[in-house]
Amino acid sequence: MSELRKDPVTGRWVIISTGRRKRPTDFRLERHEVSRDQFCPFCMGREDLTPPEVFAIRSNGTPPNGPGWDLRVVPNKFPALQVEGGLDREGEGMFDRMNGIGAHEVIIETPHHDKTLASMSEGEIERVLSAFRARVLDLKQDRRFRYILIFKNHGGPAGATLEHSHSQLIALPIVPAFVREEIDGARRHYAAKERCVFCDIVHQELASARRVILENADIVALAPYASRFPFETWLVPRRHGARFGEATDHEYESLARLLKALLLRINRALESPSYNLIVHSSPFSEETTEFYHWHLELMPKLTKVAGFEWGTGFYINPTSPEEATRVLRDAKV
Amino acid sequence: MSELRKDPVTGRWVIISTGRRKRPTDFRLERHEVSRDQFCPFCMGREDLTPPEVFAIRSNGTPPNGPGWDLRVVPNKFPALQVEGGLDREGEGMFDRMNGIGAHEVIIETPHHDKTLASMSEGEIERVLSAFRARVLDLKQDRRFRYILIFKNHGGPAGATLEHSHSQLIALPIVPAFVREEIDGARRHYAAKERCVFCDIVHQELASARRVILENADIVALAPYASRFPFETWLVPRRHGARFGEATDHEYESLARLLKALLLRINRALESPSYNLIVHSSPFSEETTEFYHWHLELMPKLTKVAGFEWGTGFYINPTSPEEATRVLRDAKV
Repeated sequence: MSELRKDPVTGRWVIISTGRRKRPTDFRLERHEVSRDQFCPFCMGREDLTPPEVFAIRSNGTPPNGPGWDLRVVPNKFPALQVEGGLDREGEGMFDRMNGIGAHEVIIETPHHDKTLASMSEGEIERVLSAFRARVLDLKQDRRFRYILIFKNHGGPAGATLEHSHSQLIALPIVPAFVREEIDGARRHYAAKERCVFCDIVHQELASARRVILENADIVALAPYASRFPFETWLVPRRHGARFGEATDHEYESLARLLKALLLRINRALESPSYNLIVHSSPFSEETTEFYHWHLELMPKLTKVAGFEWGTGFYINPTSPEEATRVLRDAKV
Repeated sequence: MSELRKDPVTGRWVIISTGRRKRPTDFRLERHEVSRDQFCPFCMGREDLTPPEVFAIRSNGTPPNGPGWDLRVVPNKFPALQVEGGLDREGEGMFDRMNGIGAHEVIIETPHHDKTLASMSEGEIERVLSAFRARVLDLKQDRRFRYILIFKNHGGPAGATLEHSHSQLIALPIVPAFVREEIDGARRHYAAKERCVFCDIVHQELASARRVILENADIVALAPYASRFPFETWLVPRRHGARFGEATDHEYESLARLLKALLLRINRALESPSYNLIVHSSPFSEETTEFYHWHLELMPKLTKVAGFEWGTGFYINPTSPEEATRVLRDAKV
């Protein structure tokens, strides 16, 4: 029988409907078209095809905007938001608007066109995480911004328009609704229990072990109890902390190691699917230290269509998190 | 410059980012594969391929589960929820669950394989709406259910797995999060103003006319101020009422007429896209009479990928509602 489960953070119910599609091999996987783009603007030597870099890791002291880099961060050439100007909040009768002010940057994770997060070394993944941190620490000084969204779309079905491995960062003058729901839910839990809801989840999951996919000294990879998507995975630090940018070097190192191990298992078990990876961290503008807990959420894009779930956020998940855990634990890497 | 807009009902901000993709013809439309299925279980004469009907419109007095029908409602053969059993709410430590109890039905809108909602007569569309009402009035007597979700996925990219025109109904023991947000937002507006937020929207939009696509005596089709998707359209009744099932015959007639006119314009302007159509109505279990306002939401599926918006509900919309209004108003039908 299918089951309704309530997310302990947001209070959202999801349907875990395992009767409809049983095994991971039953998914109609969307293939990620690997067409070698001869004019990839993210490859070494094509630095003139992107806006000038705002950050780079260059181990050999080469000058900006030329070859010799290990990682580059550049403004998005087609930004959803622009950095210049004031917010100019205003009303139109009952409606509220403001200018689309924000930063939209691309983190080019590697100079190598064929590398993916899964095939990078742990040190290379750590470099990506440290670039995220560097950009967050820089952009949070701009008082117009309230939230920095860091995410990765891997593969066409997940929304990537370029194949070369990259992540994106959007600094926003508002807090997105999905973060707001989490913050409010975590605040309610803290008000009732004086404990962090994510800490409680990690403790309970480690005790039962039914939904723990992988773990190391600092990070736990778990299938959330009320998973919205097949093989949805959260990477949660054991140590309580509200902000991704304030994690320790050791935690980044552990996160890189666990992320690589997880991706290898996902690629093996699910035939290298497309995925979205999203950093969840506290807004700058709010005091959430006691009750919010940063983490990463990874969602493989396995089902061909989202249907009306796309517009409603009403989820029917055909794979239980217990089954997803078993499959990923058993994957031979 | 792009713009941030706040939905006056839910308080959710969206990015209207018109600089990135300008005209409707710029969309990479996902085509709806029209493969004539010789074994369509929804065609006349194949009644044995579906579970026995729970409702039908048979103008000629033919017996159930054989040919001669104009519209049939049958249980979904692969239901997300099942109708038998108790809810058995229980905890697993800090987590909450209940059995997946509910009804999942399919409304086969026409016996003709090639007809679509857009090509049906107004009377045929009205028949579909009256079937929705009949099922709602029947199912709401089951005290286990708190909400009935009625939706239509038209075309493969929107989630339809069968081509033959049909809608779906899911009776739920919970109120879905997207409805909850609307209800809570409408309640807040009422607490502040003692007016319905949807009535306020309709009044302001009719006064400014910038986002009114079509209207008739009972229904207004408008592009919402903070549209999440290109060409998102709401069909809102002028008369305040919380429940779809309590509309008048005249309102259903007007809704059918406006829906057909809207779909013809959408098909002309956007090359017959896939779409999701969702009925928004009050939960049964709550007193919302004063402040909630039933309506339909139509979302063409134009962008090839939803990317991480799928998992976060954080929307970047490349088409402003004013532009969508202009395009649909100007469509030659």
